[in-house]
Amino acid sequence: MVTVEYDGTDYCGWQRQLNGITVQERLETAWEKLTGETSVFHGSGRTDAGVHAAGQVAHFDTDTAIPSDKIPYAINTCLPSDVKVLSAGDVPNDFHARFSAKSKTYRYCVYIAPHLSPLRCRYMHHSYLEVDVDAMSDAAKLIEGTHDFACFMAAGSPVADTVRTIYRAAVTRKGDEVYFDITGNGFLYNMVRIIAGTLLQIGQGKLPPSCIRSALCSGDRTELGSTLPACGLTLMSVSYLSLTNT
Amino acid sequence: MVTVEYDGTDYCGWQRQLNGITVQERLETAWEKLTGETSVFHGSGRTDAGVHAAGQVAHFDTDTAIPSDKIPYAINTCLPSDVKVLSAGDVPNDFHARFSAKSKTYRYCVYIAPHLSPLRCRYMHHSYLEVDVDAMSDAAKLIEGTHDFACFMAAGSPVADTVRTIYRAAVTRKGDEVYFDITGNGFLYNMVRIIAGTLLQIGQGKLPPSCIRSALCSGDRTELGSTLPACGLTLMSVSYLSLTNT
Repeated sequence: MVTVEYDGTDYCGWQRQLNGITVQERLETAWEKLTGETSVFHGSGRTDAGVHAAGQVAHFDTDTAIPSDKIPYAINTCLPSDVKVLSAGDVPNDFHARFSAKSKTYRYCVYIAPHLSPLRCRYMHHSYLEVDVDAMSDAAKLIEGTHDFACFMAAGSPVADTVRTIYRAAVTRKGDEVYFDITGNGFLYNMVRIIAGTLLQIGQGKLPPSCIRSALCSGDRTELGSTLPACGLTLMSVSYLSLTNT
Repeated sequence: MVTVEYDGTDYCGWQRQLNGITVQERLETAWEKLTGETSVFHGSGRTDAGVHAAGQVAHFDTDTAIPSDKIPYAINTCLPSDVKVLSAGDVPNDFHARFSAKSKTYRYCVYIAPHLSPLRCRYMHHSYLEVDVDAMSDAAKLIEGTHDFACFMAAGSPVADTVRTIYRAAVTRKGDEVYFDITGNGFLYNMVRIIAGTLLQIGQGKLPPSCIRSALCSGDRTELGSTLPACGLTLMSVSYLSLTNT
């Protein structure tokens, strides 16, 4: 398995597709160039177009003689500067980056400033409205726990089971930057970006904090905030250790 | 006058030129589109290709009826996301962004990690070698004060007077990131990038701290470290208040 960091700006997401270049394709092409092997890199999950990763995890089968601790140095010579392998290690044959994952942590970043910041807008969403951090923190607690998150899913997603467990949803402010850190056992399509949009609008006083409890009951997407843009979202880490919902 | 933030990655520097798009041209084109005026935006100084700015300052003449506090909102509608005006204000007729400037502060950022970081390499220089921060801090003190900095200038620069005053040269480490913050009354061509390269090589044990004192005496560029890449450099601010060399 490998841990991968990428700047998703110029990619059509993680998963290989016909219509554009993806991170998975970059890795598979680099690996083939390096070793001649045509391996599939199975990610812990898809990230959407424009979403970044500080710690995506993928596994693949290989007969390479390259020791695993040397794999990052080797494959990085075949990768562009916006995709790099940070670490690699051997895993048991039954390990699967997606199905063995116990939790994932995403961070959504927003900065509050009168004008768009060219040095931050690549990795953060811009909002010019002030926010109430306490209101957002209180609302984030309502997301924690095991719920049917159907209302936090983009319309039309073909998912049968929409129950997920959120272990932690925290809001932090540093200067004019606000971070939403969300850890859960799984996420529906656009779920983190809808959570971030809802918390932001609660912080701006545009939505009542109670909309979360209400939407979790009704399942009604329209009670929640907008889906924030992909640029502010980063997959921070994937954990393969069991967590308990404390 | 306006304060401007820009991501310099895709620009041939600040100053208008024939061979490529520059930040100055972007601003002048936006202003003309907005007001019909063909004004020259005089910057506090040139920044090189690929160098960023969090607080570049420029002045220009105008007969516009737009109140100065509304200028950022107006011009930003005509600017791309990698160049934005953060603030604007009226200044006396004898104000000149370059000649009235009393000091400038640059930051050079380096991160120390085994592998290149896709989420940081746009704004920071990568080094995989560990550094001694105390050695770099001590060496930075040798740069402070008024000196003939000819040795800290790229070869072939057509500058007669190479005496400058550095008010502050500080080294800070946060996690695996190192910041060189340099404030001075003026800078020679590539001076901050040579200072950063020299301090980094001192931190890596590749150069003795005494090389700075020696080079300031001899004027010999070859006694110092390499010129680090533009991406790690950001013009943080320009001050128009007199500073004393404390």
